[in-house]
Amino acid sequence: MVMPSPLPLLTCCLLTTLASAQSNSRELNLMPLPAAYRLGQGQLSVDHHFFVTLSGYKEPRLDRAVQRFLHALSRQTDGSDPSPCIGTCVGLGVHTGHASKPLQELGEDESYTLDITPSGAILNAGTPLGTLHGLQTFLHLVQATPTGYAVPAVSIQDRPRFPWRGLMVDVSRHFMPIDSLRLTLDGMEAVQLNVFHWHLSDNQGFRVESKKFPKLQSQGSDGHFYTQSEIRGFIAYARDRGIRVIPEFDVPGHCTAIFAAYPELASGPGRYQIERQWGVMDPAMNITQEHTYTFLDALFGEMAALFPDQYFHIGGDEVNGKQWDTNPAIQKFKQSHHIKDNAGLQAYFNRRLLKIVTAHGKTMMGWDEILAPELPKSIVIQSWRGQQSLADAARQGYRGLLSNGYYIDLMYPASQHYAADPLSGPAAALTPEEKRRVLGGEATMWTEYVSPENLDSRIWPRTAAIAERLWSPPNTADVNSMYRRLKIISSQLDSLGLTHNSHYIHELERLAGSTDIEALKVLADVVEPVKEYTREQTAPYPATSLTPLNRLVDAVSPESDAARTFNAEVDSLLSSPAPATMADLRATLTAWRDNDAELQPLLQSSFLLKQDTVLSTTLAQLGATGLQALDYLEHNQPAPADWKQSQLAILEDAKKPKSQLLIMVAPAVQRLVERKPSTAK
Amino acid sequence: MVMPSPLPLLTCCLLTTLASAQSNSRELNLMPLPAAYRLGQGQLSVDHHFFVTLSGYKEPRLDRAVQRFLHALSRQTDGSDPSPCIGTCVGLGVHTGHASKPLQELGEDESYTLDITPSGAILNAGTPLGTLHGLQTFLHLVQATPTGYAVPAVSIQDRPRFPWRGLMVDVSRHFMPIDSLRLTLDGMEAVQLNVFHWHLSDNQGFRVESKKFPKLQSQGSDGHFYTQSEIRGFIAYARDRGIRVIPEFDVPGHCTAIFAAYPELASGPGRYQIERQWGVMDPAMNITQEHTYTFLDALFGEMAALFPDQYFHIGGDEVNGKQWDTNPAIQKFKQSHHIKDNAGLQAYFNRRLLKIVTAHGKTMMGWDEILAPELPKSIVIQSWRGQQSLADAARQGYRGLLSNGYYIDLMYPASQHYAADPLSGPAAALTPEEKRRVLGGEATMWTEYVSPENLDSRIWPRTAAIAERLWSPPNTADVNSMYRRLKIISSQLDSLGLTHNSHYIHELERLAGSTDIEALKVLADVVEPVKEYTREQTAPYPATSLTPLNRLVDAVSPESDAARTFNAEVDSLLSSPAPATMADLRATLTAWRDNDAELQPLLQSSFLLKQDTVLSTTLAQLGATGLQALDYLEHNQPAPADWKQSQLAILEDAKKPKSQLLIMVAPAVQRLVERKPSTAK
Repeated sequence: MVMPSPLPLLTCCLLTTLASAQSNSRELNLMPLPAAYRLGQGQLSVDHHFFVTLSGYKEPRLDRAVQRFLHALSRQTDGSDPSPCIGTCVGLGVHTGHASKPLQELGEDESYTLDITPSGAILNAGTPLGTLHGLQTFLHLVQATPTGYAVPAVSIQDRPRFPWRGLMVDVSRHFMPIDSLRLTLDGMEAVQLNVFHWHLSDNQGFRVESKKFPKLQSQGSDGHFYTQSEIRGFIAYARDRGIRVIPEFDVPGHCTAIFAAYPELASGPGRYQIERQWGVMDPAMNITQEHTYTFLDALFGEMAALFPDQYFHIGGDEVNGKQWDTNPAIQKFKQSHHIKDNAGLQAYFNRRLLKIVTAHGKTMMGWDEILAPELPKSIVIQSWRGQQSLADAARQGYRGLLSNGYYIDLMYPASQHYAADPLSGPAAALTPEEKRRVLGGEATMWTEYVSPENLDSRIWPRTAAIAERLWSPPNTADVNSMYRRLKIISSQLDSLGLTHNSHYIHELERLAGSTDIEALKVLADVVEPVKEYTREQTAPYPATSLTPLNRLVDAVSPESDAARTFNAEVDSLLSSPAPATMADLRATLTAWRDNDAELQPLLQSSFLLKQDTVLSTTLAQLGATGLQALDYLEHNQPAPADWKQSQLAILEDAKKPKSQLLIMVAPAVQRLVERKPSTAK
Repeated sequence: MVMPSPLPLLTCCLLTTLASAQSNSRELNLMPLPAAYRLGQGQLSVDHHFFVTLSGYKEPRLDRAVQRFLHALSRQTDGSDPSPCIGTCVGLGVHTGHASKPLQELGEDESYTLDITPSGAILNAGTPLGTLHGLQTFLHLVQATPTGYAVPAVSIQDRPRFPWRGLMVDVSRHFMPIDSLRLTLDGMEAVQLNVFHWHLSDNQGFRVESKKFPKLQSQGSDGHFYTQSEIRGFIAYARDRGIRVIPEFDVPGHCTAIFAAYPELASGPGRYQIERQWGVMDPAMNITQEHTYTFLDALFGEMAALFPDQYFHIGGDEVNGKQWDTNPAIQKFKQSHHIKDNAGLQAYFNRRLLKIVTAHGKTMMGWDEILAPELPKSIVIQSWRGQQSLADAARQGYRGLLSNGYYIDLMYPASQHYAADPLSGPAAALTPEEKRRVLGGEATMWTEYVSPENLDSRIWPRTAAIAERLWSPPNTADVNSMYRRLKIISSQLDSLGLTHNSHYIHELERLAGSTDIEALKVLADVVEPVKEYTREQTAPYPATSLTPLNRLVDAVSPESDAARTFNAEVDSLLSSPAPATMADLRATLTAWRDNDAELQPLLQSSFLLKQDTVLSTTLAQLGATGLQALDYLEHNQPAPADWKQSQLAILEDAKKPKSQLLIMVAPAVQRLVERKPSTAK
């Protein structure tokens, strides 16, 4: 085996910055893009004799990482296991400077350099965390070339922009099997996210085995919980991938599942059952009785030992105070303690909770409602209500992270999340010192409408765009480049076994009860679930956690690639009417116009699809409208005013939700009718 | 919970036979089709309150089967877990008569009846084996209807035609991870196969941990072997699914991997290495020395204890005798023992092996070469060289099973395997008693060109057609019906996590090094790997077990659905020239003609695809030829003789393999040119 000789560490002046690299047509196929890189000449072959050597600091985690790297490499290339080198082989020399912290900490060195030349590659990292990231970068650079699998010659000097790059998964509203979450960790590693925030307790379920309070899982989980042994295994799996695991136990609201086990903790009387509905509920802990603190001290003590990370999330959001207001003892307590309102009461609770969390050696964090001047600067605020609260917190000396803008449950496109920058908006005016208090951000996967079946397609690939926002320099902001690379990382995530792409066809077949789904796919490809919180408002009947998630809205992607492509083609035609674009659009619109006739029998054959009848006829109408608009365009005729008026009325209706879905091509058809190109860049 | 009242067992006179059922437009969407069934009126709703009750004989395996059933039901329907019944619920009452054998045996009762009415369903089985099959049948009947998920009202009386319905997987030529094989078992359960034949040892690897001879795995497996603990877990997993596990240790040929560990067992001198090539090799055990029998007695003793099944497969195929002929001691042994040829020598070996296998309590089986008059009638012959040997064996009093015709590695279409009947051809003339000696058959998945990546697509869905041949009555033979139902079971197998469908796009993306694969897919959809053993003959360089399986030939399906559809459309046009068919064919042929221009840049960009250049240009030519033929047809013109001659020359060339692939639409284009409908029904 030939060990490539070490290259000198790159100095910064050799490197182009990202902004100039992006104007290079040879932009790297990476997401996230590295902090800085310079393309070289030629490429390094990666065949099945390719090898990896480890030097410097060593630990079993690095050996496992290399094994995983080689296995992923083989899946990504020839599907065979690497075989021993015979003759001259090339490879990747990995040098790790020293150990990382025994328990992964916020702000550890995650940087690395990767130098690839035609004769070998060197990955240099201060700690195993950087090594893990560098291996992922190398892996994603591998591609088929005319002469074999290879990585381009390049010098990369990389480090994350923010030290806290997270994904929260809510396993209370819908329980997610531990295997699905391990796959989620695999995906997170691939895009270099480093915090898994586990929303373990809410009204709909308490999901952790407690040995001190076993009724929590026996009465509060429907039998769907993680054993402590599973959790320990999961944390070890995450650590192997450079990911911290933060538990969240949401108190004093959002804990009806706890009350189902221990009703005496609540502020209102009566038995409690696991909540099946969504939304802000009245039940809240009685935070004026000592028993509540005795319970929390014991429970959090047990959980603090189970979850080794320094940070401990206590939720703290959305307490409506109704149970407090109607409990005379609590009212009396407020008076006797001179607490003037419920916010004050919650601040009192948080001060006491802080003592408990601190006594168990943890740093407390919570949603932005917990921010109150009485709390010490050590706590961390997770901003979900807006960027303002993050900026306010930083100005007051608190550390915080952004989740507002990263709510992937709201079904917004990747571009919208990509535009949300933790240091933009109100945070842009912060001083450098205040800015350093902005630790990063977290995508939040709330699971009201997410099942184990579609978890992957709700998280991926959009979360990769958020990962890039949190890792790459702020000027990494070209949306077209982002979408080009998002498609590539999405396919690479397939290799890990994530099902965001592969499951789609299967879901359509299940809906159809048939394998003849071509017409259904034509429709499904151009629709998206309704946005924000309109799914509740557009529901034909009140949904609960027991309502099956088995409609077209649950199968389609949060973001329609076909619609984005169509929108771009319409804009291209309106700015310069090329015949090829005209022909393409005509073919697409014709297919939509004619699809309904083929699809209707299938829609009528399945109770799951019958509700999509109007959706399908509307798409046919959009096809017809678009074709007529193209005719006028092609013959350089102005569209008759009455035609235009009638079509615009149709279009207004077409843009409204139908069976909780939006036809995403309607606005572009409208632009064809109005002959107005999109104002969006 | 409402328990449906038991229905009387069906009597045969109430049931239509399969032949008449097939003419019914309401044919069941099942594969294999049941032995007999009668459709009723209406349907039984299956919502998420659906429940299952067990009565009669109970054991933990049945509880697990019901859990698995409910989980599969939820995946197949709404993706949610079943919730407790509130109010009036309907369900499936399962009654099992008595236990099956502690160790699953050949010929146990696997029958069941399933009666579904709108008010409930009853599954009745003599043993848990029948219960397992009946649950699968119920599961596959569930479909989306206009009023909800439901199963049709039907009375099924089912039992397998043959007691031995197997799948052999060769894990020597390419090692398959145990998880992949568990998924294979899941698929086998779905199509009611009941024997997993594990080809564990061959020239290319010995794949079992031996505690007595640890060099077998350390020297003979490249580190790719199953631990005894893994094997025990695998056997338990199979038993839960009504599947027996038969190990095969191929001797005295096909065991170079054993010689790599213990060269003294071979007939020729020298050190041995794990074989990397395919084919019949010279090395064979020295079966004239006592040491060989001492070794086999110890090894088979260990393996007989590890694999509890009654049957033990000793291979015995393809000994070319060259090492025996050149070993003077062996020649001397033959003379002194009056053995006249190598067949006699192997018969001597088999007699001694039989004693060893019998002493360890097992029934010996082997490939048809082991058939020799000296062996007792207890052995079982697996016929791979032709149906004649199976009939001969049965006539001589031996039990046997058919594999000839079920070699799924040879890339033949499902219809061809479907046509192979263990009791047809030479076996048709057997007496009823002789016919009973034909136990069934086994699909054989030899893995020269199969990796863990494409194992699923090589086995599924074609093996489902073989499963039906072995389960259903012999008159279940309608090929159109088979293909219609094969598509459905293929999609149902997806639900288990098998990747025969989902992996295809991913493989194309990997080949392309890009996600823009539409043009590549147009080509890939109409080609199939070369058939029989021509892959060796058409290889650009000698392939070994280390050669990556990463070409288009490894990604495409063994059977092109698109080509079958095209062929049928051409035949339809030639027998009655409907304008819609004409338009369809024209669109398809135009797409093929124009595809090459789009595809060539991609082909040139990847070393894996460059070799497919001619394949793509040939498809374009076929498109052009077909379009011209359609023009003549449409205008009722005879095609000019010289045009026809030139096109037929082109077509002859188009039908030849290119980069180890066949363009499966060439024959149909030829029929268009010649205006001759296919003679096939």
